[in-house]
Amino acid sequence: MDHSTIAPWASPFAQKRLVALEKLHAESSASQVAASVGQAQSDYHVRVNDGIMLYAGSNVLSPTVAALHDPALSTRPALGWPGEKVQTAVQEIEHLEVMTARQVARSLNGKFAEVRFLTATMANLAAYIAFTAPGDTIAVLSPEAGGHASHQQILGTAGIRGLTVQHLPYSPRNFDIDVGAIHAFVHRVRPRLIVVGGSVTLFPHNLGPIREAADEVGAVLLYDASHTAGLIAAGHYQDPLDEGAHVVTFSTYKTYGGPAGGAAVTDSAEFAERLSEAAYPILLSNYDPARLGPLAVAAREAIDQSPGWATTTIDYARELAVQLDSLGLVVVGRHLGYTQSHQVVIDASLLGGGVAAVQRLERDGIYCGACRLPWQRRDTLPDGVRLGTQEFVRRGAGLDTVADLAKLIHRSLIATPGESLSADSIELRRRVTTDIWGRHVDVPVLEDGSSV
Amino acid sequence: MDHSTIAPWASPFAQKRLVALEKLHAESSASQVAASVGQAQSDYHVRVNDGIMLYAGSNVLSPTVAALHDPALSTRPALGWPGEKVQTAVQEIEHLEVMTARQVARSLNGKFAEVRFLTATMANLAAYIAFTAPGDTIAVLSPEAGGHASHQQILGTAGIRGLTVQHLPYSPRNFDIDVGAIHAFVHRVRPRLIVVGGSVTLFPHNLGPIREAADEVGAVLLYDASHTAGLIAAGHYQDPLDEGAHVVTFSTYKTYGGPAGGAAVTDSAEFAERLSEAAYPILLSNYDPARLGPLAVAAREAIDQSPGWATTTIDYARELAVQLDSLGLVVVGRHLGYTQSHQVVIDASLLGGGVAAVQRLERDGIYCGACRLPWQRRDTLPDGVRLGTQEFVRRGAGLDTVADLAKLIHRSLIATPGESLSADSIELRRRVTTDIWGRHVDVPVLEDGSSV
Repeated sequence: MDHSTIAPWASPFAQKRLVALEKLHAESSASQVAASVGQAQSDYHVRVNDGIMLYAGSNVLSPTVAALHDPALSTRPALGWPGEKVQTAVQEIEHLEVMTARQVARSLNGKFAEVRFLTATMANLAAYIAFTAPGDTIAVLSPEAGGHASHQQILGTAGIRGLTVQHLPYSPRNFDIDVGAIHAFVHRVRPRLIVVGGSVTLFPHNLGPIREAADEVGAVLLYDASHTAGLIAAGHYQDPLDEGAHVVTFSTYKTYGGPAGGAAVTDSAEFAERLSEAAYPILLSNYDPARLGPLAVAAREAIDQSPGWATTTIDYARELAVQLDSLGLVVVGRHLGYTQSHQVVIDASLLGGGVAAVQRLERDGIYCGACRLPWQRRDTLPDGVRLGTQEFVRRGAGLDTVADLAKLIHRSLIATPGESLSADSIELRRRVTTDIWGRHVDVPVLEDGSSV
Repeated sequence: MDHSTIAPWASPFAQKRLVALEKLHAESSASQVAASVGQAQSDYHVRVNDGIMLYAGSNVLSPTVAALHDPALSTRPALGWPGEKVQTAVQEIEHLEVMTARQVARSLNGKFAEVRFLTATMANLAAYIAFTAPGDTIAVLSPEAGGHASHQQILGTAGIRGLTVQHLPYSPRNFDIDVGAIHAFVHRVRPRLIVVGGSVTLFPHNLGPIREAADEVGAVLLYDASHTAGLIAAGHYQDPLDEGAHVVTFSTYKTYGGPAGGAAVTDSAEFAERLSEAAYPILLSNYDPARLGPLAVAAREAIDQSPGWATTTIDYARELAVQLDSLGLVVVGRHLGYTQSHQVVIDASLLGGGVAAVQRLERDGIYCGACRLPWQRRDTLPDGVRLGTQEFVRRGAGLDTVADLAKLIHRSLIATPGESLSADSIELRRRVTTDIWGRHVDVPVLEDGSSV
């Protein structure tokens, strides 16, 4: 087998793909590179527009947010507080910083916002810097319970800080922390920081008892709202700061609908100051000021997503779960009403596992991701398929498409696996003609005539 | 005094500015926020176009790089290697990853490039993750010797990892590591990692003896080329990998001329693998794929910057130093020819210090930054003024403007301080009418008629 020149240490499967891509590209001049980049980006739009996007952690930018992205601002560092910047000629970036911090704080019903983080993982790392020292213990959700890689010790971001990570007691039946066990747990483990929220978030946390336990041992309670921040801003999910979290961190580009990036919001001036010092000068120099303006607008738009987008997104998720269940798929959380968020999770353990199921769906033009399930063993591949409705709804999907989408997913995974359904998924996609901003959606096809 | 609602803990000086900005903005609707953002971004362009930009760590994007920035790609995470991505529908992002890694590696004359870092600070943090454990010691340049905040322990990025940071022996006369003292130093300190390169880089490092010392104690030698990567790519500065560095990290938006971000390049597959694992899954989830295409093109363009941009940039810096010196300013490094890079450093200790001098220059429409000098004490404010010619040359400045620019700086700092020179700086700026891509440069003024 040929070896990749990019990453000869990668797995054989990855190297096969890398070698194929490496053979494609032999650009020698700058204009050849630019042409290949332009082609790839154009093909990307065709692929995404042409498919049914149900990945739970992505979104499409609003026209205003996209139009305000000015890449020229990226190259202008602006370090430190307004009025004492390291750089000069950055007065307008100071304006943008103030506007963005204010809008982001407001969107999460908090007093203070740190908006310079380039990812939510960086916001979480800043919390580790602000609230822990190397050698401390923190408590987080396990990957099976939906905890994110940035919360973990082994191959995770918390390990950077030299933290010991313990997994919170979890009730798979309630899809939440086991509040009966949390008190004994925190007294045994004595975490400096407790992190809740994560990548799989079907239901709100019961934050009252968790905060009570945190207070008993003087722990800071961090809520990672990366997946739910847009629903929170729209007032359609739990309000973490009001219900007991000290700090909320989140991705700005998922349900929130903004540019790539992360943020932290808190009501405590003391915690805000510590997070800001962690952001600068410890973790960041240039934070890419081009993100600020689009983020300020996205924050304000996120509030306006109620009821139009938020109601439809949650109703769509719940109805999709009902329909998938009635067709015979195993949808988790039935006894709790399946979901209160934008997410739906299918147990694919009897369908060859989550990864295989996601690949079948991709072949049929339906894009989503695998996830771990609370009851699966640590040393196994993900058993779940996680769907999210937030992007498809922003792209224009209404509840009239749920039944046919459920049938398509059912056919892809169970009824007619092996038969290509891409023509059917394009047909369904073409019924979604106008996005929530009123733009007509073109559904072109790739140059070779294929749809996916 | 009114307190800032954004950061009530900030210094009185910062709060004064924050309060003024907070009073300016009372946007309540999304369209009002968008209008304010648009106005701020438009005013930013006027300010920068209208001034003389001599900040050493910034740049202006080429037309091709700017045009290829597609913000829609930002919201599409693509985690893991091509062929085994966590997400689906990211085939074109896989193409972009391969193209970008190849172009970036080539530009620094290396075999492997990790291009997912969102900042050079993250690339440095990844090196700490890859090559050290909490409690280890690393050796870096002090801030006085030009070391960056991301290299430091106290209020710096190395402290995140729980590292002990020792400062390398430095020769202020040679503007380089004291190679006579380096062997005893590494045997005493036994660093796991040695970091050279930094924010003030007038001259190349003598890397041979440093690598020799690193080998004696099994240390990894990291070269932070954030400020010089564009000169290196163009072949007009030392080639760090060829001269002994194991790994080069750098900012992609300074002399390199690309979008905001960071990268690491190495010839070692083993080191590349460790850096890649540090990047994902440890330090990053979504890395903002919108950066990739513009970065691939910038990497290729960086090579093409020889001789046009690179020669002029270095010649401009050296000639500016000569002229400033002849006018009576104290320019450091005279006995070594002042500079071999894009930077010029003025000793402003007899002019009220670096910060005051930079503020005077800003008032006159000349934008730069303060820096520390190798011979100044740790507990003092920066005594230096650091100028960089890389951006002004890309914006079109030729050597015919050097003499008048030097006179303007001299008048601002010494001859006629207090008298406004902004009309003179606009006049000089207007003589630079065409940028290096042949675009005509408009020099408009702010709405209130002021120039800065």
